[in-house]
Amino acid sequence: MPSYKAPIRDISFVLKELYGLEVLQKLKGGSEITDDLIDAILTEVGRFCENVLFPLNQTGDKEGCRYENGEVRTPKGFKEAYNSIVESGWASLSCETEWGGQGLPHTLNTVAEEMICAANIAFGLYPGLTRGAYALLSRHGSEELKKKFLPNMVKGKWSGTMCLTEAHCGTDLGMLRTKAVPDGAGAYKISGTKIFISSGEHDLTENILHFVIARAEGAPAGIKGISLFLVPKFIVKGDGSLGERNNVQCASIEHKMGIKGSATAVMNFDGAEGYLVGELNEGVNKMFTMMNLERLSVGNQGQGVADIAYQNALSYAKERLQGRALTGVKFPDKAADPIIVHPDVRRMLLTMKTYIESNRMLALWVAMEVDKSERSEDPEVRQIADDLVHLMTPIVKAFLTDVGFDMTNIALQVFGGHGYIQEHGMEQFVRDSRITQIYEGTNGIQALDLMGRKMPAHFGRYLRAFFHPVQQFIEGHQNTPELAEFMPLLAKAFGRLQQVTATIAQKGMSNPNEIGAAATDYLHLFAHVAVAYLWARAVLVAMPKVNSTESAFYQGKIDTARFFYQKLLPKTSSLFASIMAGSETLMKFKDESFGPF
Amino acid sequence: MPSYKAPIRDISFVLKELYGLEVLQKLKGGSEITDDLIDAILTEVGRFCENVLFPLNQTGDKEGCRYENGEVRTPKGFKEAYNSIVESGWASLSCETEWGGQGLPHTLNTVAEEMICAANIAFGLYPGLTRGAYALLSRHGSEELKKKFLPNMVKGKWSGTMCLTEAHCGTDLGMLRTKAVPDGAGAYKISGTKIFISSGEHDLTENILHFVIARAEGAPAGIKGISLFLVPKFIVKGDGSLGERNNVQCASIEHKMGIKGSATAVMNFDGAEGYLVGELNEGVNKMFTMMNLERLSVGNQGQGVADIAYQNALSYAKERLQGRALTGVKFPDKAADPIIVHPDVRRMLLTMKTYIESNRMLALWVAMEVDKSERSEDPEVRQIADDLVHLMTPIVKAFLTDVGFDMTNIALQVFGGHGYIQEHGMEQFVRDSRITQIYEGTNGIQALDLMGRKMPAHFGRYLRAFFHPVQQFIEGHQNTPELAEFMPLLAKAFGRLQQVTATIAQKGMSNPNEIGAAATDYLHLFAHVAVAYLWARAVLVAMPKVNSTESAFYQGKIDTARFFYQKLLPKTSSLFASIMAGSETLMKFKDESFGPF
Repeated sequence: MPSYKAPIRDISFVLKELYGLEVLQKLKGGSEITDDLIDAILTEVGRFCENVLFPLNQTGDKEGCRYENGEVRTPKGFKEAYNSIVESGWASLSCETEWGGQGLPHTLNTVAEEMICAANIAFGLYPGLTRGAYALLSRHGSEELKKKFLPNMVKGKWSGTMCLTEAHCGTDLGMLRTKAVPDGAGAYKISGTKIFISSGEHDLTENILHFVIARAEGAPAGIKGISLFLVPKFIVKGDGSLGERNNVQCASIEHKMGIKGSATAVMNFDGAEGYLVGELNEGVNKMFTMMNLERLSVGNQGQGVADIAYQNALSYAKERLQGRALTGVKFPDKAADPIIVHPDVRRMLLTMKTYIESNRMLALWVAMEVDKSERSEDPEVRQIADDLVHLMTPIVKAFLTDVGFDMTNIALQVFGGHGYIQEHGMEQFVRDSRITQIYEGTNGIQALDLMGRKMPAHFGRYLRAFFHPVQQFIEGHQNTPELAEFMPLLAKAFGRLQQVTATIAQKGMSNPNEIGAAATDYLHLFAHVAVAYLWARAVLVAMPKVNSTESAFYQGKIDTARFFYQKLLPKTSSLFASIMAGSETLMKFKDESFGPF
Repeated sequence: MPSYKAPIRDISFVLKELYGLEVLQKLKGGSEITDDLIDAILTEVGRFCENVLFPLNQTGDKEGCRYENGEVRTPKGFKEAYNSIVESGWASLSCETEWGGQGLPHTLNTVAEEMICAANIAFGLYPGLTRGAYALLSRHGSEELKKKFLPNMVKGKWSGTMCLTEAHCGTDLGMLRTKAVPDGAGAYKISGTKIFISSGEHDLTENILHFVIARAEGAPAGIKGISLFLVPKFIVKGDGSLGERNNVQCASIEHKMGIKGSATAVMNFDGAEGYLVGELNEGVNKMFTMMNLERLSVGNQGQGVADIAYQNALSYAKERLQGRALTGVKFPDKAADPIIVHPDVRRMLLTMKTYIESNRMLALWVAMEVDKSERSEDPEVRQIADDLVHLMTPIVKAFLTDVGFDMTNIALQVFGGHGYIQEHGMEQFVRDSRITQIYEGTNGIQALDLMGRKMPAHFGRYLRAFFHPVQQFIEGHQNTPELAEFMPLLAKAFGRLQQVTATIAQKGMSNPNEIGAAATDYLHLFAHVAVAYLWARAVLVAMPKVNSTESAFYQGKIDTARFFYQKLLPKTSSLFASIMAGSETLMKFKDESFGPF
């Protein structure tokens, strides 16, 4: 049986010590954000995740969801846990007070989400998608729709879904076939089949609100003819009570590699009543409001699962007795030394710890920028924060999930054969984590978004939101003695990033394949540089506290930074070389030479 | 539904064109090894894998093995397939003719095994372990035991297992507790519990022969007090017929992440009758005969699963229509372009193709050296070949499985969301492949074996079996025009390998943690250099044939080599940097600083 401990101390370090609550306090409504409030939320959400969600993780995987006659039964205990999360308000922390939410910063949502997904990612998808749907409707819906639907979404009585994918189109939404025909009474009749719909059908809420993209009659072909509709499972009457069943049915659920407690549905819309959200033919842009938040969420999911996997690998490495330290017996009174004495096991543990703490810094940095972009009083601050969020969203999504998945595999490896059997729960983390590299846009698409869209946007303006502070930091700390061992390495890695950015941006103008070929390596190179910058900042925070009572924590921060710089940051050199080699070997390779031979 | 095509053409390239059959023909009994024989075997084994084993792969995963009252039922169809593989002789290609085998080179076994494991790795374990057990008994057993057991093993009537692991000891076999007490009649009574026993119980054969390591009464503690015993499920009577049931019982089977068609058993020995194999207290050395062959096998398993995963990703990439090429529409008559036009998809496909073909060259190189080490008439040739096999065994095991697993994940990624659902079979490849990084010694142990044992052995003699031919090749081809773009890169990577070898060997003398800390990176660096060397050789073979009727194949070889050199070989630079950073960050890191926080 695995275990879970909410990473309160480290989250608190990042929020309060590294970035500082004042970042949030300065924003609109920020006066509420006190130290005590943050502590209370972290502690309570952590406890809830440890005690309520986590015990359902393995059983939920084993039992999975059951489909019968259009209905879906979630695993035992999910309903009670759902009621409990709704009552506690953890699922609506950042929803506006106007609609019954707590109006707290997005950042708090992010920390809650990491813990929820660590404890039970399959469960976490149910409230998670509702949060995305809430954001979509609250920003783009008419007042009428908002009044009718938002309060019950915040209360958790009604849940939300995103219905994008069809069997023949995932990435390429321009091909979608689902149709919308005006019903003459202000609404539309929606017809078509959507697949891979998370939470498309389940028994947790009394109503399910599907946010469906479809092509209205007579709309242009391609991506510019797509509109967004809200299609409730049950029609909501004028008085807010539930009316008749809408013509939307769950045809089946998928048998998946993991997240088995989450129902992934095939949904048939057969002239179902739907309400236009936003303007006609502007559905894709609207959907991206939700999608971008979801992408940050998915990064966080990968992070959460990696963290719980690490925790279990760590405790196994401390307990499992096997072999003796290479430099001589460490625990003569035991039958063997715990495997944490072995350098290769330490390498695995430190790789996990380092990336997980790296990624937490990255995720919360961007989360706070989301809050700044939405709530700062200063339009310039809002703008720069928004630019940074645009730039970093694909990085958070893809890097946290690529790395997150790798970390679950390292954690499994620490267990040896015991990791491969279901009992210890390690293989479930691997299976659950794997989806995060795929959904809400595969990581290849994220990389293309970063390099093809975000890099050139507004003549590089988004990039400046990152390059500028890093450049300033490097210049400002060239002679900071505490950072002497780090700064030359940071400057070198940053130089590599600048050089590939300039090179590929230029080459890409005449040959877009240069961008496509470099994109994935570029995203990883970028992320490593970003993380190196954050570790240098973390060292500055930790250094004065190494002799405090929390010496293990703070000295650990510095030593972890050192491990990152010495052992992981060198990856930037091979990524640099691979990117600079260009696209030719890829693009000139003949299709018939791929085989199979 | 996935598909499988045996990679006959590429295997044939490696065997016949790259290395040449004359390598095998020169060996004892090599006159039989004709072109036609090889073709016939490749074709027939390939067909068998495609038509008999592969159709049982997905159903076997779904159904799994069933345990009931000490008996294990394998999935539907396994029994018939097993009978069929036994009748065809594919499972005993390399067993000696003296015992009824075909006496063919180990190399042929290796190619058969790659295909068998690609088609159905879970099934492949049943005959695979018998082959290892056969090797063990045929080399170390008494004449009496050999006569009694080997013929029926070769016939496939009786199968074999390796019983090493106990709940508290896997890597550290010195801790094992299973006991052997002389029964006064020349045999022993074996008592203890073994776990993770592949094929420990099943319904495919009439008898199961367990090769069990145990501590004989009064034996020294630790690894030097371990002996090897043959414990049959049914006692074999003097006339060779089956007698009474031995006191060995399957207590349960594991629920695993993958290879669900393979029964992984907990075995209870309760005073079971066992026969000593080899000398008392020399069991671990004996077991390593089997283990080393098994390690090469496991590398091959990782390779096989990667290959089938690649094939399916490739055909999906050619069929799936999504988006348009970045440089303009490629297939205007289709609703969208096939995703193979996208640079990032090509990157994924080429990465898979390149590593898979790399690893096939590596595996077959070492396989042929195994044959040379066993069958050459020249003792010096035997010695050098044996040295190379010792050196490369951990590399084949760990590199082919680390890379193999990564390739299954890339293949899944090409499918997007469709890769995550069970239907397409891609997620099964990931789950099945994952065990190969663990069993027969985790890949961390392989790395330690390479650096801690093989590197320093006989003052570096094993290393010379690799360094010498590579050095010669580099010197001999400095001015070969066909290799102009490759040789400087090969020389550079080789230089890095030499430098880290010298550095760590020296540092390791005073501080063995330096070896432990570098080992995994070193193994990967070593493998990349070895593969670079083999690609350069492959280019020399392919270059004169690029204008033949098989231009797609040969030009593809050269372009694949180019991709390897430009995009994958640069990894050696970051591995080099990480290794040279030493062990300090790992070893000085305080245990209490690992958290969890």
